[in-house]
Amino acid sequence: MNVKITGTGCYIPSEVETNEDFHQHEFLNDDGSPFKQNTNIIIKKFKSITGIGERRYAKNHHNSSDLGFFAAEKAITDANVNPEELDYIIFAHNFGDVKHSTIQSDMVPSLASRVKHSLRIKNPKCVAYDILFGCPGWLEGVIQAYAFIKAGIAKKCLVIGSETLSRVVDKHDRDSMIYSDGAGATVIEASDSDSGIISHETATYAYDEAYFLYYGKSNNQELCKDTRYIKMFGRKIYEFALTNVPLAMKACLDKSGVSIDGLDKIFIHQANEKMDEAIIDRFYKLHERETPEGIMPMNIHKLGNSSVATIPTLFDMVTKGKVENQEIKKGDVVMFASVGAGMNINAIVYKY
Amino acid sequence: MNVKITGTGCYIPSEVETNEDFHQHEFLNDDGSPFKQNTNIIIKKFKSITGIGERRYAKNHHNSSDLGFFAAEKAITDANVNPEELDYIIFAHNFGDVKHSTIQSDMVPSLASRVKHSLRIKNPKCVAYDILFGCPGWLEGVIQAYAFIKAGIAKKCLVIGSETLSRVVDKHDRDSMIYSDGAGATVIEASDSDSGIISHETATYAYDEAYFLYYGKSNNQELCKDTRYIKMFGRKIYEFALTNVPLAMKACLDKSGVSIDGLDKIFIHQANEKMDEAIIDRFYKLHERETPEGIMPMNIHKLGNSSVATIPTLFDMVTKGKVENQEIKKGDVVMFASVGAGMNINAIVYKY
Repeated sequence: MNVKITGTGCYIPSEVETNEDFHQHEFLNDDGSPFKQNTNIIIKKFKSITGIGERRYAKNHHNSSDLGFFAAEKAITDANVNPEELDYIIFAHNFGDVKHSTIQSDMVPSLASRVKHSLRIKNPKCVAYDILFGCPGWLEGVIQAYAFIKAGIAKKCLVIGSETLSRVVDKHDRDSMIYSDGAGATVIEASDSDSGIISHETATYAYDEAYFLYYGKSNNQELCKDTRYIKMFGRKIYEFALTNVPLAMKACLDKSGVSIDGLDKIFIHQANEKMDEAIIDRFYKLHERETPEGIMPMNIHKLGNSSVATIPTLFDMVTKGKVENQEIKKGDVVMFASVGAGMNINAIVYKY
Repeated sequence: MNVKITGTGCYIPSEVETNEDFHQHEFLNDDGSPFKQNTNIIIKKFKSITGIGERRYAKNHHNSSDLGFFAAEKAITDANVNPEELDYIIFAHNFGDVKHSTIQSDMVPSLASRVKHSLRIKNPKCVAYDILFGCPGWLEGVIQAYAFIKAGIAKKCLVIGSETLSRVVDKHDRDSMIYSDGAGATVIEASDSDSGIISHETATYAYDEAYFLYYGKSNNQELCKDTRYIKMFGRKIYEFALTNVPLAMKACLDKSGVSIDGLDKIFIHQANEKMDEAIIDRFYKLHERETPEGIMPMNIHKLGNSSVATIPTLFDMVTKGKVENQEIKKGDVVMFASVGAGMNINAIVYKY
């Protein structure tokens, strides 16, 4: 028996926030001091490193669970599955529902329960829960669905990744330009076909790294010290990711028995273009190979970093022919890989 | 191979909040109108229904992840397991870390990562994640650990339930007297012994019931409408639980092959004494039996309802001989059962 992705869907919010929209922001250093460079130069530099030219923000009346629901509906239609037959709804996020212009995270009931409610599923045997695992949460949800199917306690699972990072950004922090809103969803099923998950790998680095991504106060020291925003030590994360993500990817590939030359695509968490390229280069270097052209589809330029939503959104777009010069064909072997708060890393080798 | 609880631990905060401490609270109805009865009578009535005489609140400088860490340390010692050998740390909660005198939930990094950090575990293969599943979160974490062990991707798991409900109560809501702080933890391992999990059952009711427990505004209409607190429709939950929890317990017992007379103890979520008694009575009635005396250990009188923490705390106390007239012996068959936000219900039949 294999465990296969039978349907995908994503929801890309319609509100476009361009880099130019940040021109009037007053960016400050951690200590509250102003940057020496002007905002124009900061934004240009930001673009050249991250690749991000614009990002999407959810409409004011939508929350993360709504975005997740929109993506879930599409994945269910794509999989042509009866929602009443789902055994699990697994919802990955990190901040819950944060209503526009408020600061509290709402996750009672769980976002998975909210989606189940909106999907009008009656079957009580469909278990709905949320997983918090940083940006790799959606991929970890897929691994958990795989485990439930392998353990014989599930046959069909819906795995959602959704986030509204626009609701938790510090406007005075340059890093606020990275974050975006979005949702991706996938239906995972037990299958007799020869495609499916071949291997998986997960790691949590918490000894020194636990607080590399955290919830902290604004760079503007005049704002309330108790109000917190998504924060990161970018340089530390960059170095951490460059060392550890290629190793986890290699461990996953080794487990799969697939050769490095047998890999057709890598869907990596859209964190930062330069970092993602450096990770892939190092991964290939570990195998004494040059990075093959076109191996890594990207959508970060227009969509930014929407945390748990990036990989399922990108995978949905590529399989539906919506990313230029990118396609995957039946029988292709692809890898998914992610890194984020925790610090967590995971990877899957998958035969399409 | 069986899947067995090899160690337990709990952390009971030292700050005692008695019913008398609520005498000066101004309780209001949902619509902001004052109660007709005086607070003294309200508290007496509350006590006679819920059984709660006092509850525990965490010290101001402790958060939910700290409580979880204290319980985890004890469970690890009790299991005599090397923390570096843990494959999973699963942390169940519903509100993250809410610092005293603040209103934001902090769960980046996940509370499981924080515990892993505090336990000084280096092994990156120890995967740390949080699950949100209402009050049944800890029990669902045990079921997930069971699935990972059955699927062959784990051997030893630490499952924690911790909550600081004192940080999210509305002082103007009579229901605020129910809620308490606490943490319980368990080590779950693959084992060749004949004890372990025999059967499990989980259900999510979200069609009509999703918002029976929710995050809503204060009964005091003069407070900020955007600030939200734990809220419930008590009467609806009571009726829902009385109908559906006994059925889930029966389904779990039927799966186990154990007869109703073979059941030695039931560890039920400490939600409300009268409700718990009514659930157990109906469960036995479904089997045409009278409820056996002493079948249901309780600690709600002194500890209140600490959500995900009640069952692991109670189980730890009974196995360590800390609940009067209650003990379990090697070979006893026990049931765990819970109900809460989602609305979720679950149960496990377990041979001790």
